[in-house]
Amino acid sequence: MRYARVDFGGTSYAGVYDPEKKILYAPAGDDAPLPAYPVSVEPDWLSAPVVPGKIIAIGKNYRKHAAEMGTEIPPEPLMFLKAPSSVIGPGDAIILPKISSEVHYEGELGVVIGEECRNVTEDEALRYVFGYTIVNDVTARDLQRRDGQWTRAKSCDTFCPIGPWIDPGFVPADQRLITRVNDEIRQDCPLSDMAYSIARLIAHVSAAMTLLPGDLIATGTPSGVGPLNAGDVVSIEIEGLGMLSNPVEKEE
Amino acid sequence: MRYARVDFGGTSYAGVYDPEKKILYAPAGDDAPLPAYPVSVEPDWLSAPVVPGKIIAIGKNYRKHAAEMGTEIPPEPLMFLKAPSSVIGPGDAIILPKISSEVHYEGELGVVIGEECRNVTEDEALRYVFGYTIVNDVTARDLQRRDGQWTRAKSCDTFCPIGPWIDPGFVPADQRLITRVNDEIRQDCPLSDMAYSIARLIAHVSAAMTLLPGDLIATGTPSGVGPLNAGDVVSIEIEGLGMLSNPVEKEE
Repeated sequence: MRYARVDFGGTSYAGVYDPEKKILYAPAGDDAPLPAYPVSVEPDWLSAPVVPGKIIAIGKNYRKHAAEMGTEIPPEPLMFLKAPSSVIGPGDAIILPKISSEVHYEGELGVVIGEECRNVTEDEALRYVFGYTIVNDVTARDLQRRDGQWTRAKSCDTFCPIGPWIDPGFVPADQRLITRVNDEIRQDCPLSDMAYSIARLIAHVSAAMTLLPGDLIATGTPSGVGPLNAGDVVSIEIEGLGMLSNPVEKEE
Repeated sequence: MRYARVDFGGTSYAGVYDPEKKILYAPAGDDAPLPAYPVSVEPDWLSAPVVPGKIIAIGKNYRKHAAEMGTEIPPEPLMFLKAPSSVIGPGDAIILPKISSEVHYEGELGVVIGEECRNVTEDEALRYVFGYTIVNDVTARDLQRRDGQWTRAKSCDTFCPIGPWIDPGFVPADQRLITRVNDEIRQDCPLSDMAYSIARLIAHVSAAMTLLPGDLIATGTPSGVGPLNAGDVVSIEIEGLGMLSNPVEKEE
């Protein structure tokens, strides 16, 4: 099942999406259950499927990526936040900001929370997941090095493409995550190479803070990160989940 | 003028507050201008005056505090994010979480954004300010040291008391910021000791990300940070602005 969102004239419609028939089955009203009325929606009209209240991203969660960054897997999951104002949808342009000259893609599996939770155990953690999506944890590598704290490097406008949809039925296992820049493969790694499991990440984060419906956890990127240039198109595919593509432009 | 908010039975009322008469002048409806109907509101009923979409905090912005942390003022303002789920109001309890054994207060001046802005100059920055408030940038010092990234240490539930109100007429100058724990003075410093001005902070942050109405910038803490223990009451006063008080409890 694919849960997607589209904006028409200031109104947001969210529901089950069929990308082959190009139909969004949107609830007919506040109280109407699914299925409801079908809306014709081209895939490139889709918005980010969720606008998270908070975006928790995990650093260095794939061994080879930690190595390429000159470090090791941290002794516990390492979290940081991305600003909600950095979210864009599939097809929206990633804008290279003037304050950076080295912007990298980072393809990641995203976990969308479906129910409020705090202090959950690993065993019960997955109960609170609404579904999975794809995230590009775009990063200004030069600012990341310079600031020490990663916030600015990770939170510039347009630095958090999410989409194209949320799949509540996806079960993360050894599906490959493949990032392409202009059809050239740059990252290619099974999700099973994650150091800390999704259940562990949820337990770890929720020991500090309440997770709310719509909150997003970006689970870290595999090796192969690299630069984006104006004119590029970056696409992140996760087998069985979908593909998130975004063009790249330079700030005017 | 004091702009405050109160929650009654699931509805939020925000308007001009008179703490002496204990009256909140709340708009009478969506289209009603102020002044509207007066609501009797005790000071200890107030909620956080704003629920920010993002909370941008600034590290090491007072020289003596940078020194007590063993560092210097960074070459440009150092920003990090606090999770919106960490917000509490005046009088609400700061809960010491199980995952930390060293939680510190950090009294700070808060700047609330009133109008969307991006890439603003220092000269025009203050136009986008709605008003000023008081923030306690509560920090788990042990997690801050251990993680390197400050996110978890700064974003635990209840780690962002805000209030008691927003004052649109406050003009930051050399007013003193005084933090007391159980009536004992722990921080006492004029706002004029900030290294980077508020205008500079807004310009710096907005060069990376769009600031939206309700976003909060916590401008950094002066020297004198220290631990909180269960049973303490921590109060942050800024001359001419007000006082934000919160009791401290331990997580069950």
